[in-house]
Amino acid sequence: MKNSAKDTPKAVVLLSGGLDSATTLAAAIKDGYICHTLSFDYGQRHHHELAAGQRISVALGAADHKVIRLDLRSIGGSALTADIDVPKQSNQHETGSEIPATYVPARNTIFLSIALAHAEVLGATDIFIGVNAVDYSGYPDCRPEYIEAFEQMANLATKTAVQGKQKIHIRTPLIELPKSEIIKKGTALGVDFSITTSCYDPSPEGLACGLCDSCVIRRKGFLQAGIPDPTIYVKKNE
Amino acid sequence: MKNSAKDTPKAVVLLSGGLDSATTLAAAIKDGYICHTLSFDYGQRHHHELAAGQRISVALGAADHKVIRLDLRSIGGSALTADIDVPKQSNQHETGSEIPATYVPARNTIFLSIALAHAEVLGATDIFIGVNAVDYSGYPDCRPEYIEAFEQMANLATKTAVQGKQKIHIRTPLIELPKSEIIKKGTALGVDFSITTSCYDPSPEGLACGLCDSCVIRRKGFLQAGIPDPTIYVKKNE
Repeated sequence: MKNSAKDTPKAVVLLSGGLDSATTLAAAIKDGYICHTLSFDYGQRHHHELAAGQRISVALGAADHKVIRLDLRSIGGSALTADIDVPKQSNQHETGSEIPATYVPARNTIFLSIALAHAEVLGATDIFIGVNAVDYSGYPDCRPEYIEAFEQMANLATKTAVQGKQKIHIRTPLIELPKSEIIKKGTALGVDFSITTSCYDPSPEGLACGLCDSCVIRRKGFLQAGIPDPTIYVKKNE
Repeated sequence: MKNSAKDTPKAVVLLSGGLDSATTLAAAIKDGYICHTLSFDYGQRHHHELAAGQRISVALGAADHKVIRLDLRSIGGSALTADIDVPKQSNQHETGSEIPATYVPARNTIFLSIALAHAEVLGATDIFIGVNAVDYSGYPDCRPEYIEAFEQMANLATKTAVQGKQKIHIRTPLIELPKSEIIKKGTALGVDFSITTSCYDPSPEGLACGLCDSCVIRRKGFLQAGIPDPTIYVKKNE
């Protein structure tokens, strides 16, 4: 899938190891970008997603994969990085009215900022992020108006943008899609979802808990898409 | 200088260890904020600035000081983090027409993003950063229009902002001041500049080189302010 032609556009793709970012990477590659993937070792309890990021990057044919270490645990404030319990069997993701404990303060802003630095050094014009505003668990930094504001700021922040050499675009190919449509899209693009991981609170062996918001949304997505779910869940909330 | 009253506003103050950020912290404390200082261990070659950040934070009476580790060296693209020479005796900072090799891609965006996360967790409403658009060495992310765009994005990015609980303000008390005025302001606020450090390429003992852009701007600032410069320079570019 690699393309080394000099005029092929380059993109930085944020890769969490989940099915959204894997589908996003597949979409970026399909659109003809040379993709440089970026993951973060930020003190998350679901640390196994880093290995998934590496697998996905290789499987889909990214040009390279970088893991940036950043200690968000010392900032705290989230069930994903601090000593706060991961909520189980909640329905918050259905209403979108509350922001759950798994929200990591300013996470997408931090990840997009570092992606912006990476894009500037690489000469990449596009940053892909797999946010979606439908099954987004109520995270503020997954909404279109946030993404637009980030793009506007990014175009004032960098040397290349200021010199008028290139404009930075933040690409969100999944932003309008429910989880079931993302799964259909990824399947059509040839993504092997068995190598992705979504669980916020996996077993020591890396198996999905089956009960956290992320597992619940994932299971329901496969059911609604009518596509077999390759995930092994420790428990099923039937 | 600490104030523990419940209604006293809290601020996160970015602290590099230089004279600008020390003056900014002194200004924030004078304005009545409980200040939480934040420094970054990002692989900078002028690593000694971290000790200066700690000294300044204690000397001026911040509530606490946090150092976040973040490996920007693996992103590269700057004389401050990669194997690129630090330019010496240049006059780029006077013209502002060129962006020098010491520019670190998207650095202020990354630092402000992490400060935003810290502010959200602390319940702080203000983030102080010591940028200035006069002697700013041509960095794009020191300009007022960039700061405004960041503030706008920040108010769409966080849980507290979305819930309408508080608005985030990015405060830049030095943005319109030339270096000599910053030195006068800091002196009036009681900052001991002997514990600050500006050099991009210090000696192994941590002494200022005297020749990098940052040293040249600092020396000239003290001269123009008519205030004795407490800095020991290895070489003086007379």
